[in-house]
Amino acid sequence: MVKELDSIMKPKSIAVIGASTKEHTIGSDIMKRLQEYKFAGKIYPVNPKGGIIEGLQAYTNVLEIPGDVDLAIIVVNAKFVLDTIDQCNEKGIKGLCIITAGFKETGAEGAAAEKALLEKVRAYGMRCVGPNCLGVVNTDPAIRMDGCFAESLPERGNIGFVSQSGALGGGILNILKDLNLGFAQFISIGNQADVNAETAIEYWEDDKDVEQILLYMESIQNPANFRKLASRITKKKPILALKAGRSAAGASAASSHTGSLAGADKAANALLQQSGVIREYSLKNLFATAKVFANCPIPKGDRVAIITNSGGPGIMATDAVCEYGMQMAKISDATKEKLRSFLPSAASVKNPIDMIASAPIEHYKQTLETVIADENVDMIMVIYLPFLGLKDIDVARAVMEIKAQYPQKPVVGVFMTKNEFFTKLSDMEVNMPFFMYAEEAADGFNRLNQQRLWMEQPEGKIPCYDVDRETVKQIIKKSIAEGRDQLTTLESIDVLQAYGIRACKYGLATNEEEVAQLGNSIGYPVVMKMTSKTTSHKTDVGGVRINIQSEEQLRAEYRDLIEKLTEKGLLEGLEGVIIQEMVKGNREMVCGIATDPQYGPMMMFGLGGVFVEALKDVTFRIAPLTDLDAKSMIKSVKAYKLLQGARGTTPAQMEQIEETLLRLSQLVNDFKFIDELDINPLLISEKTGEGIAVDGRIKVRMEEAKQALECACAGCTCCG
Amino acid sequence: MVKELDSIMKPKSIAVIGASTKEHTIGSDIMKRLQEYKFAGKIYPVNPKGGIIEGLQAYTNVLEIPGDVDLAIIVVNAKFVLDTIDQCNEKGIKGLCIITAGFKETGAEGAAAEKALLEKVRAYGMRCVGPNCLGVVNTDPAIRMDGCFAESLPERGNIGFVSQSGALGGGILNILKDLNLGFAQFISIGNQADVNAETAIEYWEDDKDVEQILLYMESIQNPANFRKLASRITKKKPILALKAGRSAAGASAASSHTGSLAGADKAANALLQQSGVIREYSLKNLFATAKVFANCPIPKGDRVAIITNSGGPGIMATDAVCEYGMQMAKISDATKEKLRSFLPSAASVKNPIDMIASAPIEHYKQTLETVIADENVDMIMVIYLPFLGLKDIDVARAVMEIKAQYPQKPVVGVFMTKNEFFTKLSDMEVNMPFFMYAEEAADGFNRLNQQRLWMEQPEGKIPCYDVDRETVKQIIKKSIAEGRDQLTTLESIDVLQAYGIRACKYGLATNEEEVAQLGNSIGYPVVMKMTSKTTSHKTDVGGVRINIQSEEQLRAEYRDLIEKLTEKGLLEGLEGVIIQEMVKGNREMVCGIATDPQYGPMMMFGLGGVFVEALKDVTFRIAPLTDLDAKSMIKSVKAYKLLQGARGTTPAQMEQIEETLLRLSQLVNDFKFIDELDINPLLISEKTGEGIAVDGRIKVRMEEAKQALECACAGCTCCG
Repeated sequence: MVKELDSIMKPKSIAVIGASTKEHTIGSDIMKRLQEYKFAGKIYPVNPKGGIIEGLQAYTNVLEIPGDVDLAIIVVNAKFVLDTIDQCNEKGIKGLCIITAGFKETGAEGAAAEKALLEKVRAYGMRCVGPNCLGVVNTDPAIRMDGCFAESLPERGNIGFVSQSGALGGGILNILKDLNLGFAQFISIGNQADVNAETAIEYWEDDKDVEQILLYMESIQNPANFRKLASRITKKKPILALKAGRSAAGASAASSHTGSLAGADKAANALLQQSGVIREYSLKNLFATAKVFANCPIPKGDRVAIITNSGGPGIMATDAVCEYGMQMAKISDATKEKLRSFLPSAASVKNPIDMIASAPIEHYKQTLETVIADENVDMIMVIYLPFLGLKDIDVARAVMEIKAQYPQKPVVGVFMTKNEFFTKLSDMEVNMPFFMYAEEAADGFNRLNQQRLWMEQPEGKIPCYDVDRETVKQIIKKSIAEGRDQLTTLESIDVLQAYGIRACKYGLATNEEEVAQLGNSIGYPVVMKMTSKTTSHKTDVGGVRINIQSEEQLRAEYRDLIEKLTEKGLLEGLEGVIIQEMVKGNREMVCGIATDPQYGPMMMFGLGGVFVEALKDVTFRIAPLTDLDAKSMIKSVKAYKLLQGARGTTPAQMEQIEETLLRLSQLVNDFKFIDELDINPLLISEKTGEGIAVDGRIKVRMEEAKQALECACAGCTCCG
Repeated sequence: MVKELDSIMKPKSIAVIGASTKEHTIGSDIMKRLQEYKFAGKIYPVNPKGGIIEGLQAYTNVLEIPGDVDLAIIVVNAKFVLDTIDQCNEKGIKGLCIITAGFKETGAEGAAAEKALLEKVRAYGMRCVGPNCLGVVNTDPAIRMDGCFAESLPERGNIGFVSQSGALGGGILNILKDLNLGFAQFISIGNQADVNAETAIEYWEDDKDVEQILLYMESIQNPANFRKLASRITKKKPILALKAGRSAAGASAASSHTGSLAGADKAANALLQQSGVIREYSLKNLFATAKVFANCPIPKGDRVAIITNSGGPGIMATDAVCEYGMQMAKISDATKEKLRSFLPSAASVKNPIDMIASAPIEHYKQTLETVIADENVDMIMVIYLPFLGLKDIDVARAVMEIKAQYPQKPVVGVFMTKNEFFTKLSDMEVNMPFFMYAEEAADGFNRLNQQRLWMEQPEGKIPCYDVDRETVKQIIKKSIAEGRDQLTTLESIDVLQAYGIRACKYGLATNEEEVAQLGNSIGYPVVMKMTSKTTSHKTDVGGVRINIQSEEQLRAEYRDLIEKLTEKGLLEGLEGVIIQEMVKGNREMVCGIATDPQYGPMMMFGLGGVFVEALKDVTFRIAPLTDLDAKSMIKSVKAYKLLQGARGTTPAQMEQIEETLLRLSQLVNDFKFIDELDINPLLISEKTGEGIAVDGRIKVRMEEAKQALECACAGCTCCG
């Protein structure tokens, strides 16, 4: 499918429709860029006036072009675009890059035009980048296509870059060269009518030229599809994403806790995390990470060695490495001995290895060579501060020389020197990244390590439990028949139980025998609560009895209740008593489901009770959950320590809690119209460590639920 | 006092003792730097061999110098340093800068030499920078002293910089020019035998040349003095600090929660925060912030306007501004109207103001001029992305031209363009900071706003409460007399009560009348707990009765207890019953004191109970606390929301909790040998909102306590 993008990204011939001789127009710039960058195929300018454009014969119409055309870059006025697409089809062109703006971004009319555009593209079996984009680039020497109107010519590199912001794409092209970064391919997706980030990452999945993928996104078009693709592709190559528009998310009006805590950005964050995408929060960090992935292999572990010629920066580097939770490598005795053999006595051969200010280039080489060979070391940071006598660029060359002999370990240079050093570097071939500050290098190591951990992690599985869907259907049907979009607590508990979720056991009894039977089947201790049409303040009349330990006590309490109510003349309204399992425990968790308008159902887990809103110790994942998602949710909240059994409490049954989350995920997957679901608290039993739903709340989207359950209501067989 | 530093920082004449003609030695480099930088006073090279050094007549001894000498820069071998100081004294020199290494940093022998050195300096009434340092710089045109052996010559600027790492100081000198940053003065304090960071900041307090102070520290010598000085000076000018060695702090072995949560870095962090010092965690951020303070006034508020020629970066900038908790300025209608009058219709005049890609330089000028005049705007970020046709440096010039007319509002440029733009800038006079990325600008605004808030905040006061010191003294005396460094719970509660801290009321009663009396004086509900020599499992024998509501019930429960114990034959061991106030509430806070070996007593406050370790929702401050410290502690924990009365709970009495912290602070200030103190929980009463100490633990440092209380034990009158 995505192979079709070849017509756009690897064309043998390009028609520039709207090519122009007028300076500083896109129609002129695109022609210039294509030629300056020496496109390997044929370029056909198209302009109704004909003539010569950038030294080439222009055709008045695409149909006049003598040879085959793979890609049409369209820069004509928006009103001519649809006709142009028809002509392209007639000419047999399969790839379009529509730079022209004036579509969806301008309002309803533009959106209609864009819809018509997409219909044509689909009908003609074409693929299309844009409209409203900056263009496309492929730096492959066999292609050499700069079909972009950015200021700079692109540099060759290993990055596949997708930008949703055209202007930003242009800005980026300018900056990257300074950072020693280059593209393999670049796609400015613009309004992403057809080709979007998902198309691009799938297209690049097995492209050896593209070793890492960078995304600038303001939205994710099809979250489920993105997740499916990205979680697969990130196992092969890193995807780094900058997702803008975080703050715009704002307050969600949802009424449950889950709703009020989850914002659109939390959903995006969960999605990216579950997909193994490395999320960056600024362009600066995006590029710094790309610089590291461009020149470093994935390390074998997280043990970092630091080589420095100055104490202070060594300390700062150690701080940064430790703050990321990575390990300072324990240098082996053999390595230490070897280092001592040539370093001065004032040097420190413990990590950080301080060669002291007098270190000549030779010491940089010998020290790196010695440390890189140490099996206890996975990554190395080489710090250089300028002292009189040494030239920074010479030190860098020496370090790169050694690095070249050991391609399997990441080495990053921290050169606290003048800007011109980095300018010099940008004109050189480098085999490792260089930064000005230690923190940037530690940042990079952290990303390498994150990618390592993700790639080492097996693929998650979405389990399928044997559940009682029919009961859930009936409960919800009843509720919506009564006009309630919100189930009662007991209905909610019943739904949970139908899906095998451990909820507080309960039952209603109306006489002593029933009471005793229920107590025995639930198991002691139990709580007895009266339910009455006339008495609302149950506690005041002794209607709530807790911690009942035996059948004998239960019978006695029941008789006592009846007696007291009789005395007070309140027996009449009594409907019965609820006998409920009494769960003891002081660890209250919360789990639930909220629906993000864009990303769909999202799971929440964390510390519950009164703490939910204040402490916000909760985590989110997009449903459906894999087993690994559930595990990681539980581990990623601070309250995990409480679950582990801090201070002599019973450790929680982690697998049972995981299963609770997975069963919830299955529930919302089966009943997609569930809008909100809260289990608060999910009490951790002090006795068994089980997570038990003590309270539940479920809200459905009425109209959707009605539709989905309608046929069943009529008794037809089309509902499974 | 610090005025004496003038001899070092503003000398009229300098003797370089150890000046040399040998290339690439410090004795040669220092001479070169002094001359290249055109020192405004007299330079006297001193070398036993005499001769001509850097074109100047060298003296074989400092005593031979004909004129007066203010400053001696000493670079002779460590073994000659002490004698050299004697000679300097004989010559009447009052200022020393000892660059020579080989002192404390080399071990015990060096430390002894350094001690001797300091004794001489003190005895002679001199001041001394170093030893083991890089030197000193003053760029004042009337002084022009580069007494430093760094690679670059210093640039003039408004920064006073103190570096504890010599090498780092050198590295920094190299980098700063590229960042358009310059020094007023620079002191490499080295081993800080005499002059340290505290001396420097005090010296610069009223120096108009020094408009901001930068500190690179690995340790703080006298935390209390640093706090006193810094909290005063930061009200006049910003102090930015990079404190390295955070991770080295490691695990403290203290046994209480306070101890296990507090690390040395927490103490440093608290100290810097209480002193109004802006703490940075990387050199990169330190310099970025300095760049902002170098060219921006302190704003009047936190309302940020963003002007951009591209949507994407505008969104990212908005994200960053909001994430710092600053406000996006609400552009006034008049401003919007004015903007609409010249911007194209596709432009957005809402904040962020998107002038779109076609914006010419004139639009940058007009838009900035319009927005800067808007009273709803406190700070402005101007974003530029390169599009064909405009020159970045021209845009920068135009923006600076407008900025020059409005010096009262901070304006920061974000120019996502090539590195050479910044290289060009570094050779220009600028009146505002320029960054590559929006996040850096937002970062800077956040720091400006932090400084504004600090400067607007009144000075905190340390209150003095009327307390019962004598009782505390007696309780501790008794405990140490019994060989216990840890007080019992009841003793601890008594200590707290003696200091007016609201603790759970209790008393011991041995008969029914006493029981009733106690109950009445404490107030109901109460808890009754038996205390017995023979029965340890009180609960099993019904020895704990909770929620007793009245005297009648209390008497009944007591009689019932005696009856039950008699039946069981357990009456014999009974010592009595503790009648204790029953506090109801489910908000458990923690507060306490831990002692940091370097920073002294440190206060802790936060969420208590079983959550302390897992959630670590706690904050620290160095004692003694000011009223503002106490307020800020309470507000800075997430559990503050719980205290405010989330979900219909009673709001906590904030002032009473503040007072609890302040009284604790007074307690530890009065009894400095208190090593650890924990109130966990400080239960928030559901009824009154008071914070009530339900459990307490106090541990003292035995030897120190003995000494401090000794005389009183002997009945002498010297203890107050």
